[in-house]
Amino acid sequence: MSAVLPQWKIAVVGSGAVGCFYGGKLAALGQEVHFLMRSDLEHVLRRGLKLESAKERTVHLQGVRAHATTQEIGPCDLVLIALKATDRDALETLLPPLIGEGTALLTLQNGLGADEFLAERFGAERVMGGLCFVCLNRTAPGVVKHIAQGRIGLGEFSGLPLPRTHDVALLFKHAGVPCEVVGSLARERWRKLVWNVPFNGLSIAAGGVDTEAILADESLTYLARALMREVIGIARALGHELPSSLVDDQIRLTRGMGAYRPSSLIDFQEGRPVEVEAIWGEVVRRGFNAGAEVGRSEALYRLIRAACTRRGG
Amino acid sequence: MSAVLPQWKIAVVGSGAVGCFYGGKLAALGQEVHFLMRSDLEHVLRRGLKLESAKERTVHLQGVRAHATTQEIGPCDLVLIALKATDRDALETLLPPLIGEGTALLTLQNGLGADEFLAERFGAERVMGGLCFVCLNRTAPGVVKHIAQGRIGLGEFSGLPLPRTHDVALLFKHAGVPCEVVGSLARERWRKLVWNVPFNGLSIAAGGVDTEAILADESLTYLARALMREVIGIARALGHELPSSLVDDQIRLTRGMGAYRPSSLIDFQEGRPVEVEAIWGEVVRRGFNAGAEVGRSEALYRLIRAACTRRGG
Repeated sequence: MSAVLPQWKIAVVGSGAVGCFYGGKLAALGQEVHFLMRSDLEHVLRRGLKLESAKERTVHLQGVRAHATTQEIGPCDLVLIALKATDRDALETLLPPLIGEGTALLTLQNGLGADEFLAERFGAERVMGGLCFVCLNRTAPGVVKHIAQGRIGLGEFSGLPLPRTHDVALLFKHAGVPCEVVGSLARERWRKLVWNVPFNGLSIAAGGVDTEAILADESLTYLARALMREVIGIARALGHELPSSLVDDQIRLTRGMGAYRPSSLIDFQEGRPVEVEAIWGEVVRRGFNAGAEVGRSEALYRLIRAACTRRGG
Repeated sequence: MSAVLPQWKIAVVGSGAVGCFYGGKLAALGQEVHFLMRSDLEHVLRRGLKLESAKERTVHLQGVRAHATTQEIGPCDLVLIALKATDRDALETLLPPLIGEGTALLTLQNGLGADEFLAERFGAERVMGGLCFVCLNRTAPGVVKHIAQGRIGLGEFSGLPLPRTHDVALLFKHAGVPCEVVGSLARERWRKLVWNVPFNGLSIAAGGVDTEAILADESLTYLARALMREVIGIARALGHELPSSLVDDQIRLTRGMGAYRPSSLIDFQEGRPVEVEAIWGEVVRRGFNAGAEVGRSEALYRLIRAACTRRGG
C-alpha cells in the first residue's frame, strides 16, 4: 500500500449509524470529512462524534465538520450516501451542491434501486455502490456502537472496477475498514439481500424478534434458510450467480452476532419508515418478472407492509 | 323428501361449537343424540344446550343426553366426530365403545389426515367426511352462537357417494342444515382449505386480526388471494380440480362474514392448541411432494408454528 494517501474532500449525506461510522473512520484517518446532519447537528458540533466498539478502543472525534446544508459543504471528491432508501427522493435536491467535475457518488444504501436512481439523475459514470456487512446501532446522539463485522464490498455501477474503485477501497482499508473491490456490484447487492430478506424480514414479521430469537426457533430458522435459497434463486434468474453455500455461511455468521436487532426492526420499533420497497418489494417484483419462485419473499413482503400499516407509517 | 325419517342413534364426540351446533340441530329434530362432553357436562345436564343465531330463533334444548364416557353411550348408527385435529389420538380409545356392525363415522374435522386416520384404525368403509362451511363461536358453557353460513359438504372416504350418504344428508336437511352430497370428499377438503389456509393463517400470522381487518388491509388481501391461488394449484397437482373463480367467490363470501374471528385465531388467543399440522403442515408437505409451488403457504406455516411456540403450546 502507498505510504502517502491522497487528501480527499468527502461528504457524508445521511448521518445515521452507517454514515457516522464510516465517515467517522475516514475522519479519524485525517481525511476532510463533512457530515450533513439534522437532529444530531448541535450535539455533534459541541460534543463531537463517538464510535464505540466491543473490540476496539472508543474513538472520540472532536471538531467534527458538521453542516445543516450541502450548500455549506460545496463540491467534493467523494460523497458517501447513507440516507435511508425511503428518503431517496431528498437526494435530488441534496446532492447537486456537492457535485463537481470528478465527484464520485458512493451509495451505501440497502436494497435495490439506489444505483439506478443516482445514475439516471447524475450520470451513471459517477455512481459507485458499497455493500456494508456490518452491525451498528446508533445508541445516542452522536454515538454509534459497532457490534460486529464491518466489511464493505465496493463496486462500480457501470461495470468492472476502475482505478478510483481501488483508491476508495485503499482509503477505507487505511481507516481500518476491511474493503473489497467486487467484480459485480449487482451480485454483491444480491449477496447482501440473501441476509436482509430473511433476517430483517422475519425480525418484523415474527412480531419483533432479534437474530438470536430467530435462530433459537426451529421454524423461523427453517424459514430463514428457505428464504435464503429463494433469494439465491431469484438472483440466479437475474444472472447473478451466488453459491448455495452462502446459506450455511450466513447462518454461521449470524450466530456470531448474538442478539442483534436488524436495522429494519429498529426502524419499525422506533416508528421510523422501514425500507420495505427497496428490500422486499424490489426483490419480489424483479424475481417475478424473471420467472423465479418468489412465494416466501412475497408472503414476507405483504406481512411486513401490513405490519407497517398497522403501526402507522 | 320422505315424510318419515328413520330414528337414528347418534353420538357426538367433541362437543365444541361444531359438535354442539350440528348435534343440537339433529337433537332438535327429535333424533337420539348423545353428546360426549368434558368441561360443559354438568352445565348442559342441568341447563341444557342453547343454539343462538342472528337470523333464527334461539333453540334451547332441555334434557340433553350428555355423557362423560363413550362406554355410557354404547354402539351408535352414526358418530359425528368434531374433536380438534390436535386431539386426534384420543379417538383411538374414545371410538371403540361407539362402534357396532353398521356404524358410520362422520368426521367434521378441519384440515387433512382425519379420514386416513380413521380408515386405518376402524376400516375405510365406515368413514365419511363432512366439510362444514360455517361460522360458529362457543360463547359460554352450553351456548353456541351461529354467525353465518352452515352448509355441509358430505362425502365418502372410499369413493363415490353411497345410499347412506344421501340418508345422512337428508337427515341434516330436515334439521335445517343445508347439506350437499359431494362426488369427491378429498376435493371438498381442498375447497375448504382454499379458505382456511389464508384466513385462519393470516389471522394469526398478521398478529391477531379478524377477517374484516384482513380484508381492510390491501397487502393482506393481496396475500390472501395469492395464497388461495397457491392452494388451488396444490390441489390441482394432487388431482383435485378446483375452479379459479373460487378466489373471488371466497373473498365475496368472507366480506359477508363481517368481523369474524377464525377458529384458529380463537384457539390461538385462548391458549388452546392450534391445528397447525392438519391445516398448513399437511398442505405444504403434500404440495411439496406433488411438485407444486408452496412458498407462500410454507412461510405462513413456519410463522404460525413460531407464533405458537412463542405463545407457549
